[in-house]
Amino acid sequence: MSNQVFVFDTTLRDGTQGEGVSFTAEDKIKIARKLDELGVHYIEGGNPGSNKKDIEFFERAKNLKLRAKVTAFGSTRRKDTIAEHDVNLNRIMESEVSTAALVGKSWDYQVTTALQTTLEENLAMIYDSFRYLKHKGMETIYDAEHFFDGFKRNPEYAIAAIRKAEEAGADWIVLCDTNGGSLPGEIAEIVAHVRTLVHTPLGLHPHNDCDLAVANTMAAVQAGVRQVQGTINGYGERCGNVNLCSLVPNLQLKLGYECFSDEQLALLTGSARFVSEIANVHMPVNQPYVGAAAFAHKGGIHVSAIMKDPKTYEHIAPELVGNKQRILVSELSGQSNIIVKAQEMKLNINLESSETRLIMNKIKDLEHQGYQFEGADASLELLLREGSGEIEEMFTLESFKVLVEKASSNGVKSEAIVKLKVRGQTVYMAAEGNGPVNALDRALRKALHQFYPQIEQMHMSDYKVRVLDEKDATAAKVRVLVESSGFGSTWSTVGVSGNVIEASWNALVDSIRYALIGRASASHLNNKLNQDRGLVNH
Amino acid sequence: MSNQVFVFDTTLRDGTQGEGVSFTAEDKIKIARKLDELGVHYIEGGNPGSNKKDIEFFERAKNLKLRAKVTAFGSTRRKDTIAEHDVNLNRIMESEVSTAALVGKSWDYQVTTALQTTLEENLAMIYDSFRYLKHKGMETIYDAEHFFDGFKRNPEYAIAAIRKAEEAGADWIVLCDTNGGSLPGEIAEIVAHVRTLVHTPLGLHPHNDCDLAVANTMAAVQAGVRQVQGTINGYGERCGNVNLCSLVPNLQLKLGYECFSDEQLALLTGSARFVSEIANVHMPVNQPYVGAAAFAHKGGIHVSAIMKDPKTYEHIAPELVGNKQRILVSELSGQSNIIVKAQEMKLNINLESSETRLIMNKIKDLEHQGYQFEGADASLELLLREGSGEIEEMFTLESFKVLVEKASSNGVKSEAIVKLKVRGQTVYMAAEGNGPVNALDRALRKALHQFYPQIEQMHMSDYKVRVLDEKDATAAKVRVLVESSGFGSTWSTVGVSGNVIEASWNALVDSIRYALIGRASASHLNNKLNQDRGLVNH
Repeated sequence: MSNQVFVFDTTLRDGTQGEGVSFTAEDKIKIARKLDELGVHYIEGGNPGSNKKDIEFFERAKNLKLRAKVTAFGSTRRKDTIAEHDVNLNRIMESEVSTAALVGKSWDYQVTTALQTTLEENLAMIYDSFRYLKHKGMETIYDAEHFFDGFKRNPEYAIAAIRKAEEAGADWIVLCDTNGGSLPGEIAEIVAHVRTLVHTPLGLHPHNDCDLAVANTMAAVQAGVRQVQGTINGYGERCGNVNLCSLVPNLQLKLGYECFSDEQLALLTGSARFVSEIANVHMPVNQPYVGAAAFAHKGGIHVSAIMKDPKTYEHIAPELVGNKQRILVSELSGQSNIIVKAQEMKLNINLESSETRLIMNKIKDLEHQGYQFEGADASLELLLREGSGEIEEMFTLESFKVLVEKASSNGVKSEAIVKLKVRGQTVYMAAEGNGPVNALDRALRKALHQFYPQIEQMHMSDYKVRVLDEKDATAAKVRVLVESSGFGSTWSTVGVSGNVIEASWNALVDSIRYALIGRASASHLNNKLNQDRGLVNH
Repeated sequence: MSNQVFVFDTTLRDGTQGEGVSFTAEDKIKIARKLDELGVHYIEGGNPGSNKKDIEFFERAKNLKLRAKVTAFGSTRRKDTIAEHDVNLNRIMESEVSTAALVGKSWDYQVTTALQTTLEENLAMIYDSFRYLKHKGMETIYDAEHFFDGFKRNPEYAIAAIRKAEEAGADWIVLCDTNGGSLPGEIAEIVAHVRTLVHTPLGLHPHNDCDLAVANTMAAVQAGVRQVQGTINGYGERCGNVNLCSLVPNLQLKLGYECFSDEQLALLTGSARFVSEIANVHMPVNQPYVGAAAFAHKGGIHVSAIMKDPKTYEHIAPELVGNKQRILVSELSGQSNIIVKAQEMKLNINLESSETRLIMNKIKDLEHQGYQFEGADASLELLLREGSGEIEEMFTLESFKVLVEKASSNGVKSEAIVKLKVRGQTVYMAAEGNGPVNALDRALRKALHQFYPQIEQMHMSDYKVRVLDEKDATAAKVRVLVESSGFGSTWSTVGVSGNVIEASWNALVDSIRYALIGRASASHLNNKLNQDRGLVNH
């Protein structure tokens, strides 16, 4: 058997059945281009029979000149009618795609309970639908719904269903683990058995309800399946479809199958982040292969080992999937983490000097107070540069006042006044805002703008608050993380205080200082660091 | 072989090596209680050799009277010394735990490159360390680091390492897939082989770098492993440890092994959410078994099918793991959730009345704005009671002002002024505080104290802030959860607003109203509700 495995991407169709995922037609066009660049073989764009957005997508997709085969999804014809009259099948044809994927029942219980028709009628529905579309010259894929559950309960009927599709000329038979409850051993066994009974090339469409979709798909491929249906980042109904970002590297780098070229595989991390940005779904930092922390090392012992040889704690070179190694600085770090960071930042740190020792102690002390430099590289860099005497003060705080007022009849108002000393001059500026932190941010920028107009090019793009030691609620410290964007990159800063306003102020000030000392300007290093955190779109 | 599999939870140790995860000693105590309730057999609390926080944890853990075995982590003695002089080993003993888990090298390359010592010295390190601790009466676990990579490259040495631990009397030998790069087939084969060479019971400690940790662990258990080391929600270095929330249901419900009792397994979802709240790490909605969307149905066809029979699209009954079915599109299901809550609270809700419909709509509207009544039962109850006309207004807000000031030479000051109408009188009161919310809280209480002296008996015991829609940083909404204690119980309230001060005000006001209408007085029901959410220490 050939080693080529075809990747069928259903991010734009099954992926949208996940909670919190919804794409406009424009979103789908953008993602389709990205998927095509990545190298997927099929892009299932949606269901033209049930969705105006999708009709628009298929219309526009005609102009994209994609290498991938744009595929329309639908189901076998409705019961008790004929294929020629089925609205959904006709919409699929009107979409003028090359390929159609039709889902049809293969579990007898589903036929009688959900469809409420006879077993024979269901087989006719399968046959008619595929005959119809094949006759019209389309490539056709049969998604045998609930195949594994159906096979376990009534194997004859499940086989009869897929044989009907084969008879009618279907080009692929995709076995679906629709409820996601099957195990790798069962999948492998059933796939091997099916291969003795049908000749049509097989695919798998698993779901991740047991956290086994990747393992199930690998077992299926090893048993002879040659099409895998999944989504970027594992989006999809309930626990999602199989995550292509885990599956493809496993198939290619671990098992020697061919899905994408090496250059395409290196686009994986960027593609995953691109799609998660558009979907506006939080991407877990610890996602395998493509997550921000997939090659991030925290424990001091791990870090000193990987400095000697990355293979000590990395199972593959991160660049193969477009990711990067990162060293995290935390209370678990030894000195080596901080030193590595300094080297990344191209700082000349003299490890022996007393200044270095002072900075190290200051950093550990701040961490003990609740500062967390993970995810706040810019604040860490400022500290390190200060320590080496590199930074001059761009401005100093004289005072600030923040006022929040609410009258029962009105909404709430927030104002801030900021008094700074900049280049020997006193500046006094006020601003309103959506909330106290927003007001303070705006007042600060107004005050600095006349001296540092470049400040206009940056803005706060993310804001996180964490209450530390919550049990001591009246004296709890607050940690604020601010992400700023501008100059073609993004950078993160941190502030800690018992007072959320002061903590926010500290993080804001760091974010501006970082930009003003010129570190934020698109530099190779910054962009690379920021790419790691998936913050730069490309 | 027995069907019992021992669950070794390392959320508090290996879990903290994940990016963004960090626990105080108090956090660890809370989580340890929860884990014990859940039924894990070992709780690895930390590393007393390297961490003051952990020394404190082990000290306090002595008073917890847990069923689980509290375990201290460390490594084999340093090279070129003796066990009796090793600081880390001695700290482990001083922690007075029953069980110690020591990591030691079993991959020759790691010995020479990372440890920079000889292969013989490493074997001596293993032997001496286990002999020492065993002699002191501890149960000992050998975490054979990089075992699978080591075995693949130099099987004799890897076996020699674990045999040394066995000779020295180790009670368990845990094979670690430290780099997370192994596949299920390899794991099964190697485990089966190891079982022919050592008699000591075996464990597995996988990592999720290939998205296969769950599959690897199941394969290992089927090959004879009887201890599984993992974390809640799969926290851990890089891509995390094996996610116990996926693994245990698979082992128990799919493969028939015994880990927890049925009642304990039903605590799984609550435990997962509890830990993620404390860790302040976003829990993916599509997480298998315990995720909010694990049994959530969106597609219209799925929904009508499951209305006929849930087995059509659910592989297990969600209640087995303490989760619940959800319908994402239909309004009907939203109502039933609220109705169930009302019944829980013993409210007489007339389902047909227009007031009820109004409340339902108001609640859905608030949820749409970001209110989440999970974990804020008191706010929900106030709404439901308001709707049935039960509640009279105890006080109304005329206005508040909050002022935060910082002068460069001093610290930061926070003051609040509150103007209320109480029983027809206008009350105007000011207070200072540690921060803006604390100042507001104190001013509010001062104002009410003269009318409602019982207010003195309650205080804010927990305060959480979550920024919603973080991507829209300048207009992001904030959700505040306040936990209050007093009258022998605790209760939680919520507030949402674009302004963190206003959101906090809303949650504070609800918390006081709840007490003032007499609902906070120690009621059986309150404590039970709060226990579920793990908010009451017991």
